Amino acid sequence: MSRHRRLRNSLRLYCLTDERMGDDELLKVARVALENGVTCLQYRAKNMTARRALQQGERLRELCGELGVPLIINDRVDWVLALEADGVHLGDDDMPLPTARRLLGQDAVIGVSASNPAAAQKAEQLGADYLGAGPVFPTETKSDAGRPLGPKGLAAVVQSVDIPVVGIGGINAERVPTVMSAEPAGVAVVSAVMGADDPARAAAGLRAAVDSCCEGVR
Amino acid sequence: MSRHRRLRNSLRLYCLTDERMGDDELLKVARVALENGVTCLQYRAKNMTARRALQQGERLRELCGELGVPLIINDRVDWVLALEADGVHLGDDDMPLPTARRLLGQDAVIGVSASNPAAAQKAEQLGADYLGAGPVFPTETKSDAGRPLGPKGLAAVVQSVDIPVVGIGGINAERVPTVMSAEPAGVAVVSAVMGADDPARAAAGLRAAVDSCCEGVR
Repeated sequence: MSRHRRLRNSLRLYCLTDERMGDDELLKVARVALENGVTCLQYRAKNMTARRALQQGERLRELCGELGVPLIINDRVDWVLALEADGVHLGDDDMPLPTARRLLGQDAVIGVSASNPAAAQKAEQLGADYLGAGPVFPTETKSDAGRPLGPKGLAAVVQSVDIPVVGIGGINAERVPTVMSAEPAGVAVVSAVMGADDPARAAAGLRAAVDSCCEGVR
Repeated sequence: MSRHRRLRNSLRLYCLTDERMGDDELLKVARVALENGVTCLQYRAKNMTARRALQQGERLRELCGELGVPLIINDRVDWVLALEADGVHLGDDDMPLPTARRLLGQDAVIGVSASNPAAAQKAEQLGADYLGAGPVFPTETKSDAGRPLGPKGLAAVVQSVDIPVVGIGGINAERVPTVMSAEPAGVAVVSAVMGADDPARAAAGLRAAVDSCCEGVR
């Protein structure tokens, strides 16, 4: 399988961590999520010391290695290097993409947040490997997420670039068919898995919903 | 001059930036400080986006290169790499020293905060190039700085290791002779320069005070 196809497949059910969770709870829920259909994990810790984040990250790195799931780090290129993670996800306020590429090399996966076609095309030109587009729906996880794109806005981003796009923001299993109608590579979630009463069932349900939309398409 | 002697000399008047300053004000005051005796600059931005910090850092990198003064970055190893700065300063909550050394290489300057002989010796064993010991006096710049060491506590740290030590915390020109009686390589300041009404005069006064204590000693 080509690198691009492999990346696209790993974006089907992309789960971000919730830094409000305790260390052991995070590891436990992440394991359950990965064992039940999550195809990519993003570690996000915006309000944590580097020392503690690297301890958590080390445990997630082991887990992801064991289960063969890519680990992407939000923002912190030094943590990617320290943990030998698979790549970084960069928001508008983070390190510029060309700088991150220079530090991480061509093999690293670099994802970028892009909420409109112009931003998406710019990121693609700069060498992004995938895009996160959102919020698709209103979300309470990210307070600064901006105005919802809706499935139409997501479709406009998807159609504007050749690299894979994941929709993010307010997505749950019921909404997956609507989101996937925009033909993204997959969906990204935080609370729908990390905040679920039954994370195993939540991950499996989301994955089944995404897969059923992908059947016959690819 | 050996690398160690050069580092020791560059620690005589070590100035940290104050992230509450605006971009242009920071650059202006930093230039004046470096032109008037500051021998090392530490860029510290704990509550700023990476995007903005790298923009500020790029301007400081140019300034320090022009004036031949080392630029040390607080905490962020990725910024050190992105800016090609001279090194990093690590606190207790930051990336562990061995990880930073692995990412930055042997030529980078790595400083560590150490407020007692046991911590100082541990950092030296792990390969720290210099130590910051404090607070020597009570300080308002760093709210979590802990109990003041006083000149005796600083002397205990200095005597416990072979690597150079800078005293930090509540230091002004009047207090320099007391601080230097502990025989550190130099003094580190934030507000005494960055917050001074006349930063040029403040830097020159501090530098003269440190130099007069070093005469005949080295």
